[in-house]
Amino acid sequence: MIFKIPEFEDIIEAHERIKSLAHRTPVLTSQSINEITGGKLFFKCENLQKVGAFKYRGACNAVFSLPKNQLLKGVCTHSSGNHAAALALAARVKNIPAYIVMPENAPAIKKKAVESYGARITYCRPTLESREQTLLEIQDRTGAKEVHPYNNFQVICGQGTATKELIEDYGEFDVILCPVGGGGLLSGSSIVSRALNPKGLIIGVEPEGADDAYRSFHSNMLVPSINPNTIADGLLTSVGEMNFRIIQRKTDEIVTVSERGIIRAMRLIWERMKIIIEPSAAVPLAAILENKVDVTNKKVGIILSGGNVDLENLPF
Amino acid sequence: MIFKIPEFEDIIEAHERIKSLAHRTPVLTSQSINEITGGKLFFKCENLQKVGAFKYRGACNAVFSLPKNQLLKGVCTHSSGNHAAALALAARVKNIPAYIVMPENAPAIKKKAVESYGARITYCRPTLESREQTLLEIQDRTGAKEVHPYNNFQVICGQGTATKELIEDYGEFDVILCPVGGGGLLSGSSIVSRALNPKGLIIGVEPEGADDAYRSFHSNMLVPSINPNTIADGLLTSVGEMNFRIIQRKTDEIVTVSERGIIRAMRLIWERMKIIIEPSAAVPLAAILENKVDVTNKKVGIILSGGNVDLENLPF
Repeated sequence: MIFKIPEFEDIIEAHERIKSLAHRTPVLTSQSINEITGGKLFFKCENLQKVGAFKYRGACNAVFSLPKNQLLKGVCTHSSGNHAAALALAARVKNIPAYIVMPENAPAIKKKAVESYGARITYCRPTLESREQTLLEIQDRTGAKEVHPYNNFQVICGQGTATKELIEDYGEFDVILCPVGGGGLLSGSSIVSRALNPKGLIIGVEPEGADDAYRSFHSNMLVPSINPNTIADGLLTSVGEMNFRIIQRKTDEIVTVSERGIIRAMRLIWERMKIIIEPSAAVPLAAILENKVDVTNKKVGIILSGGNVDLENLPF
Repeated sequence: MIFKIPEFEDIIEAHERIKSLAHRTPVLTSQSINEITGGKLFFKCENLQKVGAFKYRGACNAVFSLPKNQLLKGVCTHSSGNHAAALALAARVKNIPAYIVMPENAPAIKKKAVESYGARITYCRPTLESREQTLLEIQDRTGAKEVHPYNNFQVICGQGTATKELIEDYGEFDVILCPVGGGGLLSGSSIVSRALNPKGLIIGVEPEGADDAYRSFHSNMLVPSINPNTIADGLLTSVGEMNFRIIQRKTDEIVTVSERGIIRAMRLIWERMKIIIEPSAAVPLAAILENKVDVTNKKVGIILSGGNVDLENLPF
């Protein structure tokens, strides 16, 4: 398939577009985690972003770059996660309709979040086929524009802005680490890192139980995620085609981490940094703790991707 | 008793002294909490301060303003809470000895924290008498200077710097709210607010179950805390004499909140803002949620005092 891949200039444009809409999130450091890891770690707190995840950046950029004639018809997507909430809020801010397809078994708390942003939810059976079929029907009926959670030009550009801010605010890094699920964050971050941090490495981190990006990257062939299983529920999806194309060209390495490592890293961040992150956001620190990435005496940027976690159901 | 009370100029001096030692903590906002409360709330995140509490400011200022001839002898205090960890770390940074008296039944996690900063701990029986006696013995033996957790000139000046940063970074406020335990934070904040935010109100908030500051303020007479009982374990102590003197002159109001309100506010901040705060830090938001302070259409500053909470033992 032929498609245009975002350039750094597109991310600059995206940043101009969403600057006033999304938080410029704080960057935190922890002396005790630096002592444990031997590196100098800078955590970009996208858990403190609106809707509690970096996803708001991409959704905003997609919504606010729609052509005028699309605005009345609105946007749609199928998602049960952070992207659904992000798209719903971005559409509300722009004052256009958002149609979200969610599996009927989605957690009540996620349904409520999406509803509270005023999106129109259509429930479907919890299969990919049913999701896609339902989404097609909605598109036919409403003319709404699909905004894919990651395999989307404007979404990738929006996600890249987190790493852009990190480098603008703290200078160049030896290594930048971010989680990989569908690859929206990693592909956007990789474009930015190549442009603004050319001497540093950009590394994606994935759970062992959902290692399709790792396998794809190392076999140079897009391998789907089959029966993925990890506590990092934001990283279950397969890498998108556009995302993979970018990752192949611009990412330096992908490594995997264990479930135990994810939980340990998550807890360490809760305890030492006093912030709430979801398991998906803990994978980069897990890679450091499990010695998959050597950070000794290195300056390291870490994107903490999100903080949406069920407080009734903590893994510790 | 006659003693000198800090002026705003002393807090400016304190700020110069500790600026490079303590984090200039981020200020967060939450659209959803604004919608719930009807105000425009700015949360100064001292839970993200070193040692997880504003206490590091006061401890640093006390340690770094010691006269040269005191340095070798070091500092001491009795505390089982955030002040002990703060003083231990400040002393380590200055490379002087810290002697901490802790009750033998202090939680293991607190003992560990103080130990990890290299302080010398002396355990005593869990009574105020035993604590004070043990501290006197240590002072006699070592010549260490006592740094009281709140009834101390330099500590008050250090604590005031959080509110100074908040106003410097975000301009004037209609209302500034902060918790009251011993009154170190409230007295320092009140001095700053009178100087930099003279048209706004500065209000202290206290748990109903530990309402000595409330009763003292309204009777104009220092009333001790008797059998206090609240989940906000940082607010159990009685207001100090120097603190009360300042609060009488410079604080506009003190209000109290229920235990239920504290837990609700704490959970709301965890869920919506994705940060970890301890119960003591939740009392200002509780006062808003319980309509003890009207914030409708007002710009409100809130000091989130700390984030040290036992993850094994959450109240929700």
